[in-house]
Amino acid sequence: MTGTFQRIVLASRPRGAATVGNFRLEELAMPPLAEGEVRVRNHFLSLDPYMRGRMNDAKSYAAPQALGETMIGGTVGEVIESRNAAFAVGDRVVGQLGWADHGVSDAGGLRKVGDELPLSAYLGVLGMPGVTAWYGLNRILEPKRGETLVVSAAAGAVGSVVGQLARIAGARVVGVAGGPEKCRYVTDELGFEACIDYKTAADAKALAAMIGAAAPNGVDAHFENVGGDVLNAVMTLLNPFARVAICGLISDYNLSPGENAKSAIRHPGLFLTARFKMQGFIVTDHLELWPEALRALGSELAAGRLRYRETITQGLTRAPAAFIGLLKGENLGKQLIRLTDGA
Amino acid sequence: MTGTFQRIVLASRPRGAATVGNFRLEELAMPPLAEGEVRVRNHFLSLDPYMRGRMNDAKSYAAPQALGETMIGGTVGEVIESRNAAFAVGDRVVGQLGWADHGVSDAGGLRKVGDELPLSAYLGVLGMPGVTAWYGLNRILEPKRGETLVVSAAAGAVGSVVGQLARIAGARVVGVAGGPEKCRYVTDELGFEACIDYKTAADAKALAAMIGAAAPNGVDAHFENVGGDVLNAVMTLLNPFARVAICGLISDYNLSPGENAKSAIRHPGLFLTARFKMQGFIVTDHLELWPEALRALGSELAAGRLRYRETITQGLTRAPAAFIGLLKGENLGKQLIRLTDGA
Repeated sequence: MTGTFQRIVLASRPRGAATVGNFRLEELAMPPLAEGEVRVRNHFLSLDPYMRGRMNDAKSYAAPQALGETMIGGTVGEVIESRNAAFAVGDRVVGQLGWADHGVSDAGGLRKVGDELPLSAYLGVLGMPGVTAWYGLNRILEPKRGETLVVSAAAGAVGSVVGQLARIAGARVVGVAGGPEKCRYVTDELGFEACIDYKTAADAKALAAMIGAAAPNGVDAHFENVGGDVLNAVMTLLNPFARVAICGLISDYNLSPGENAKSAIRHPGLFLTARFKMQGFIVTDHLELWPEALRALGSELAAGRLRYRETITQGLTRAPAAFIGLLKGENLGKQLIRLTDGA
Repeated sequence: MTGTFQRIVLASRPRGAATVGNFRLEELAMPPLAEGEVRVRNHFLSLDPYMRGRMNDAKSYAAPQALGETMIGGTVGEVIESRNAAFAVGDRVVGQLGWADHGVSDAGGLRKVGDELPLSAYLGVLGMPGVTAWYGLNRILEPKRGETLVVSAAAGAVGSVVGQLARIAGARVVGVAGGPEKCRYVTDELGFEACIDYKTAADAKALAAMIGAAAPNGVDAHFENVGGDVLNAVMTLLNPFARVAICGLISDYNLSPGENAKSAIRHPGLFLTARFKMQGFIVTDHLELWPEALRALGSELAAGRLRYRETITQGLTRAPAAFIGLLKGENLGKQLIRLTDGA
């Protein structure tokens, strides 16, 4: 195949907040396919908060994103050329082809998906965000019937699934989200018992009072996507033997060098008085559980018990701005970039 | 029985550091025994850091120590009068008779112990501190052969048992303690691979460098008795999937109102990059496990694999000063008050 494709590379590392200037759009010639490889036309790119961490040159669970290389990212698309017997032109595939409208992969990097659902679902509720929610809920929080669970970024791709799965398990769910639109979505559409708009709280103490009023029996489980005041507020509400899953601390991802973490845990004595557990996790550590998680999520979706929304931004060139918006909480539900022409 | 007994009551609540002025010695007439009760002459009183928390009028896992009442505390002694068929004069008993040279209890508050070991052992290695070490190690940290475990207050009643049990389990153990005498005890007598004298470190970063040099493969498990810089230093050294048991945060027990916690967790992002678990616990939540723990500790002791030391202060009147010394780390091993005449 001849012609060109577009990609976005990391042009420079941010100091403090990421900017569109940290990214660069490139147009390159399509590379030839080697034996065993497959060429995919990407339909959607997933934007996720973890990408911000990879933009730093810091020791972490994964290698930093290399400068000048295609930004990492999950994609779904259609096979348009194949030199691999396991893949045919027209196959729908999920992969990690990055911020690009086309990509090349060997078979190990791609997973075929069916026709039953829109492709974009495999980047959200039936993809990494869904499995993240399932893992944190079922392997760390383990909510029991009648317990109270709090989840931050409740209207987001992960938080919305966490809360719905917790409700299916019989928990009382309080969401925390930014703004009245998200809160309405969380209560009216997702069915959470309450949603606290953190933007209306003056400080962590006021936020704790608001969440506390919505959780009169205290908090037994907390799924943290955000950190900052939310984490410190919820900690003061935890019941004995509560569980806290740390999935993300988005409030700290744009820290400037030397700046104090907004999620610094100010009252560590609560670990003793409430004897709780706090555990960080990364869903890609647990690839062996993905099939089980995807089966569970698929059956809830098929049964109509799992709703989701997407914020779709058109075109690769808008990905940097959409990503920066994601870090600020401007999306509702799963943030995607559509890489095909808007239909 | 006629005559008088001595006790120490909480006279006032501390603001910031506890002082001897917060306590008051009283001499009272021996109360009569009701049917079912037993009178005990206490031989030893246990002093433990948790008592500092009870002196505050704060929401916690246990009710605050009441003003004007006998300070709570574990005791061992001998039955000297009995109106309970299950106890005979001369029986050796462990109880919670508080800071007093005599006490009265019904049978539910006392546990008979044998003659094989000195009475004082039942307040240390075969008592609450020993079970605390066993629980945190076996139910939270679960060290595997070849892993590296760090324990703070390593020369203390709990820390010394933690490290020895961890070594029996095949872990490499690094202690943290204050001063060269304690560190020599930890390495030369208890056999830990290394001991870091935290008093020689300028700050958390320097402390992390010292512990890191003694833990070249990183830290897989940490048993925290102290908090402050130790906790923040060890957090930076944790390996993926590490476990941290929060047993005590003694560095924060004497905080003044409004003062920031020395154990505030400054780098919460480490929860994500190292995906570790941090869990607080209180051993009295798990009374059902005490028999198992005491059997395990007893058999290690009998096999000569568990050493312990005691710091014995003579006389009830010295208990307040000894307690304040304990909070400053002046003791080595288990801090006890001997309530009988020094033999």
